[in-house]
Amino acid sequence: MMAYRPDGAPSTDDFGAFLPGPRLTMAGASEGPLAGLSFAAKDLFDVAGHVTVCGSPDWGATHPPAARSATVIEKLLAAGGSLAGKTVTDEISLGLLGRNRHYGSPVNPRAPDRYTGGSSSGSAAAVAGDLVSFALGSDTGGSMRVPSSYCGIYGIRPTHGAIPVAGLMTQAPSFDTAGFFAADPEIFARVGDVLLPDASLGEIEEVIVAEDAFGAADAAVSAALKPAIERIATLIGASRTEIVAAEGLRVWNEHHCFLQHPEFARTFGPWVDAIDPRLSYDVAKTIANARGLPDAPKRAAEAFRPLVRERLDALLDGRRVLCLPTTPTTALPRDLSLSATGEACDRIVDLTCIAGLTGLPQISLPLATSGGLPIGLSLIGWRGSDLTLLDLARRLGSPQ
Amino acid sequence: MMAYRPDGAPSTDDFGAFLPGPRLTMAGASEGPLAGLSFAAKDLFDVAGHVTVCGSPDWGATHPPAARSATVIEKLLAAGGSLAGKTVTDEISLGLLGRNRHYGSPVNPRAPDRYTGGSSSGSAAAVAGDLVSFALGSDTGGSMRVPSSYCGIYGIRPTHGAIPVAGLMTQAPSFDTAGFFAADPEIFARVGDVLLPDASLGEIEEVIVAEDAFGAADAAVSAALKPAIERIATLIGASRTEIVAAEGLRVWNEHHCFLQHPEFARTFGPWVDAIDPRLSYDVAKTIANARGLPDAPKRAAEAFRPLVRERLDALLDGRRVLCLPTTPTTALPRDLSLSATGEACDRIVDLTCIAGLTGLPQISLPLATSGGLPIGLSLIGWRGSDLTLLDLARRLGSPQ
Repeated sequence: MMAYRPDGAPSTDDFGAFLPGPRLTMAGASEGPLAGLSFAAKDLFDVAGHVTVCGSPDWGATHPPAARSATVIEKLLAAGGSLAGKTVTDEISLGLLGRNRHYGSPVNPRAPDRYTGGSSSGSAAAVAGDLVSFALGSDTGGSMRVPSSYCGIYGIRPTHGAIPVAGLMTQAPSFDTAGFFAADPEIFARVGDVLLPDASLGEIEEVIVAEDAFGAADAAVSAALKPAIERIATLIGASRTEIVAAEGLRVWNEHHCFLQHPEFARTFGPWVDAIDPRLSYDVAKTIANARGLPDAPKRAAEAFRPLVRERLDALLDGRRVLCLPTTPTTALPRDLSLSATGEACDRIVDLTCIAGLTGLPQISLPLATSGGLPIGLSLIGWRGSDLTLLDLARRLGSPQ
Repeated sequence: MMAYRPDGAPSTDDFGAFLPGPRLTMAGASEGPLAGLSFAAKDLFDVAGHVTVCGSPDWGATHPPAARSATVIEKLLAAGGSLAGKTVTDEISLGLLGRNRHYGSPVNPRAPDRYTGGSSSGSAAAVAGDLVSFALGSDTGGSMRVPSSYCGIYGIRPTHGAIPVAGLMTQAPSFDTAGFFAADPEIFARVGDVLLPDASLGEIEEVIVAEDAFGAADAAVSAALKPAIERIATLIGASRTEIVAAEGLRVWNEHHCFLQHPEFARTFGPWVDAIDPRLSYDVAKTIANARGLPDAPKRAAEAFRPLVRERLDALLDGRRVLCLPTTPTTALPRDLSLSATGEACDRIVDLTCIAGLTGLPQISLPLATSGGLPIGLSLIGWRGSDLTLLDLARRLGSPQ
């Protein structure tokens, strides 16, 4: 049983990024493209011989040590990266803010009174706090993108299926992806070369600014991102504005949830039923509501998803990228009530559902601040454009 | 932070009845009707200077020590009873089985592989295990009656309002009652004399056997209770059979829930919202569902309650008692899944809702076993007949 760190007072020597107790470390190969770099891994990734706790003491207590390490961890070690520790995650990956009532909510190194974003909270804090060179996270509904934006670092949710998820805790398989953070765009791209060896480098011909996505963000956030958009448009040489979701982004959000929620209810339902775990209220409520969802909206969402995939595939057409705010606001304060954070999460998913529903890759770039806090600008590329997006991040250079 | 005792393996030296750590004891007055008797108190009752944890570490961590002791504890101490410790309760009193994932689920002394019933689980275990002479519990939806039946002891849910609830954690105020358990009917009645000084002794002229309530119980349970019913009918001298709920007991159950659940949602909602507590899945689900209830069924239930109160007041008419099984089954096995226990609880409330909705007093008598396990026979009396019911328990003598 690990110590309970109240939400408001995690250990600050490491931003509460790492799991309590001795760090789980593994030395990487002495040579390779990542030699000399350290990385952290969200505690949803298996390390052989160790229990993957997934941010829940009762999950940890009811699962055996992993038989082998996650594919991505093996690849990073083989490429010379060294594992510096496993990081705190929102409980069983259900959360977008970086809250964990069992192990403490990591501190945002760029804004200590605010959340890091989640669920890849500890990995983002470790990178933003300069404790590691890069870090593994995962993204089902926004778990890479939100902490990238809140903590002011680079992060990618790859094309669905492009990075192997073997050894990553399953949440909602048709949405689950493994991603990574870095503070340096050069390292960010180098990790991509290791984890996405099959991807090809393409050419971006046009930037499409998602008018409705910018409309869904706070006006100050949209304004703060404008110079960065212009920089990218100038670099690419062509841009236009378009409404992505004629139906309204909230409708996309709802369809996303009607698909994702039954999937995680299938994943976690039998465990909950057998184990009777202690959970955070919001996690339990999310699972309970998902288990109670009627069939009709699920069927509607199953019909909706291929249509919007086709639409965005046609729009991006192997040569365009969509530009949007990563999150509608900067990092949220740590003292919000659950009802306030619930409303905030609804607004976040209005933006994160676009790549989620379509399975397209998205990178978040730390190119702006608003009110002194980081805010990410996102680019969604065509299916398989991951390396092209990472290359663009490298060309845009260091954070401004 | 107290140690986590997994559900299947609580400490067995005290049946896991008492809270972990040093016992909270208080010596009673040297003279009085309860002199020389020890009692336990469910950890929903305040003791001055101590935090009432209410079965939830996060409740305990977010509430100050009680300024004064609960009225009933003061009365028992003044009457000579000595407090021997505080007992485990289902988390914030929401449960009927005796499960607690934070402090362990007490062992049923009469059936170690089965639950004690709850939420007054530790108090029932302490009495059934002969660790104390009597014990305080509370009953909102069945929390005295279910453990009385499962553990084979005497227990009372008094007339609503007859025993003061000052210093008892509020759950659903229009249902909350303070009650007590004893293994000996003489002591059971003596505690009633102390806690119900204003009640008067009346005469029971007729026993009404609730046909629908017996129909809602397992056939083996109804059959096992038959000899005890006949004994009571013979003692009283007159009996007949009647259907209590023409609408069906499940309809009464639903109306009960439509009233109770919004009340506890109002009680716990602001705390949950502010504190983000760690909860058992079922507790969180129960609160979340209650907060989401629409208004129409609440209004229907508000209209329904006075009608059934009038009906039962007319039926019992200051001279009749209603006889029913306390629970539809004997104690449930400890290894059930949450979905199985959920269905079991629905069946329990079919029976416990009768006294709950009407506010009438109910005693459970340990007068039978089924398959070697205890099963309680209940009597519901007219409003204010508490001492009359306790006197009947005394006249029926020791458990058979």
